[in-house]
Amino acid sequence: MSSNKKEFINSPTFFVGVRGNGIISFGSGQPDLPPPPQIYKILPEYHSFKYGLTQGQINLRKALAKQYSGARPENFVITNGASEALDLTIRALSQKFGGGKLLLFRPYYYSYPFLVKLAGMEPVISDLKEGKIDLDDFKKKVKGCKAILINSPSNPTGKIESIETLKEIEKIAQKLGIYILSDEVYKDLIYERENYLLHGPYVVTINSFSKTYAMCGFRVGYLYARDKDLVNRIVEIKARTSMNTSILSQEMAYEATKVPRNQVESQIKIWRQRRDMIYNGLKDLGFDLWKPEGAFYVFPKIKNSTQAVNDLFYKYKVIVYDGVWFGVPGRIRLSYAIDTEDIKEGLKRIKSYIGSKKGKI
Amino acid sequence: MSSNKKEFINSPTFFVGVRGNGIISFGSGQPDLPPPPQIYKILPEYHSFKYGLTQGQINLRKALAKQYSGARPENFVITNGASEALDLTIRALSQKFGGGKLLLFRPYYYSYPFLVKLAGMEPVISDLKEGKIDLDDFKKKVKGCKAILINSPSNPTGKIESIETLKEIEKIAQKLGIYILSDEVYKDLIYERENYLLHGPYVVTINSFSKTYAMCGFRVGYLYARDKDLVNRIVEIKARTSMNTSILSQEMAYEATKVPRNQVESQIKIWRQRRDMIYNGLKDLGFDLWKPEGAFYVFPKIKNSTQAVNDLFYKYKVIVYDGVWFGVPGRIRLSYAIDTEDIKEGLKRIKSYIGSKKGKI
Repeated sequence: MSSNKKEFINSPTFFVGVRGNGIISFGSGQPDLPPPPQIYKILPEYHSFKYGLTQGQINLRKALAKQYSGARPENFVITNGASEALDLTIRALSQKFGGGKLLLFRPYYYSYPFLVKLAGMEPVISDLKEGKIDLDDFKKKVKGCKAILINSPSNPTGKIESIETLKEIEKIAQKLGIYILSDEVYKDLIYERENYLLHGPYVVTINSFSKTYAMCGFRVGYLYARDKDLVNRIVEIKARTSMNTSILSQEMAYEATKVPRNQVESQIKIWRQRRDMIYNGLKDLGFDLWKPEGAFYVFPKIKNSTQAVNDLFYKYKVIVYDGVWFGVPGRIRLSYAIDTEDIKEGLKRIKSYIGSKKGKI
Repeated sequence: MSSNKKEFINSPTFFVGVRGNGIISFGSGQPDLPPPPQIYKILPEYHSFKYGLTQGQINLRKALAKQYSGARPENFVITNGASEALDLTIRALSQKFGGGKLLLFRPYYYSYPFLVKLAGMEPVISDLKEGKIDLDDFKKKVKGCKAILINSPSNPTGKIESIETLKEIEKIAQKLGIYILSDEVYKDLIYERENYLLHGPYVVTINSFSKTYAMCGFRVGYLYARDKDLVNRIVEIKARTSMNTSILSQEMAYEATKVPRNQVESQIKIWRQRRDMIYNGLKDLGFDLWKPEGAFYVFPKIKNSTQAVNDLFYKYKVIVYDGVWFGVPGRIRLSYAIDTEDIKEGLKRIKSYIGSKKGKI
């Protein structure tokens, strides 16, 4: 996992925690803006130490229930980030159905197919059309699937699905009795319109404090599901595989739920400014890319993306992620969750890299 | 998961987090003694928030490496408690071998068979003889297994395996190239002799800060393995399923590694006193049980253990765990990680319960 050896880079795991040494990282999707100061205020007096409820602290689940219409604390499970929420949900579905097919849209977040296969399910792939769900293809592929995994706003595309598409999928899934796993970790980072949250008896909403409150390192996420049987299965699995999420991280997350909405929304302005800078910067360099509508990623086309990832890191100290990891070669993902000076410096280095290739992107 | 409804109790998950209301809990294995005060001293000034290394903070892994002869930081993975260490290891083995058999000793910790099956492996059971490994049976069963899971000191038996047995198993496993998963979360809680730590190229040592430092709620455990390929697989899985263990919990665990050894060992005296109290108390009530050599559990015989668990909870507000959950009906597990007044009160209530059964245990 060291960045010193000139190891060939073929997984995002290589970059986790790699920083410093003049590296500009467009890699990991980690906000550089600090968390709301409120979350630290409980620390000086903190003295608890015992196991908490596997399902999650009741104060936190009560606070979350207020955020979802008709929800109750027992519909929530607090997890080690959205990653664990997703892993637990897929494991519970695999256990419930004895395996089965799960539909993913490509490009996908790099962990999705890994998690599906690891849990003993089979990924079925529907390719996005210019970053959006292709309903015709979806309707063909969804038959026989036990679940669908949707991520809007999307990592890595930065696109959001139209409300009409989401409602159509909701309708189809409910009719067929298929679960929808809705990974909404970027729901508070939308530039273009209000988000539409998928809902229904078979919907599992997955979310996290990591992005909205810049609490990545504390690892607090959650899932919300109206299906009691599924929640019970998930709690039973979590009781054996990790037990409660850190009680202290949960208390910090609880403090985060009290942060006024306008404090959260004021950050959107900063994200939009960065988005415009990186989008325009890459456009000016000649890249072909979509304008992000949400989240904090751009996903430009590039020739031989794997070579680019290795060259940019070893020769220019720039971290970008290979499109291959998201299921599509010929693109790289850049996170712009870094400050504007770093974005500028990174763009300069990418310009040099392209220069060395005689402008052939 | 509520204790208010008179739900039939058939899983330890029922009891997680259930406390207060005059309940005496011999249930969860959770020390009541507080953690070393040192672990809280970093809290007032703490301000980090970013993702850490999936494998674990380097300061913590360096400190742990000093505790194991010949170990290096890259041999460790820091996890959400020993539970996640075990789950990740079994998933990695299942991935490596495409499933396969894993040998367990019965009575076992209740999560073991669940985790093995959940990960797509098949548990093979070797029954303990009076709480100790039966080498003849072991030798017959181990053939064709990919791994063995050992837990000494044992939860639930409170027994420790003889050094000769452990060395013999080490030899056999190394010869056959079989992995040994050694769950050593109670290695610092031994009353009878020095512990013997299993080691070798195929050994995965699993440990935790939960029991030794009473840090259950913070969820910090780890695994130590010399097999680089296995460690890499585990890190890759953890990167997708939970990412880094809470960075703050890890810093607290790091502080715990600096606690002087005699501060830890001074607690053994308290545990021995409690052990003697509960062992003698249950003996006096007529129970047939082993004298614990390590950990903090007694595992007496009782008629219709499932009925006893339900009656003791609903009629006497006493939590005990059903032997059925550990693979053996006709016993109950009592944790004595509670203060002596509670042990006394609990024994009194158990006496009343037995009285109601006209002394038929």
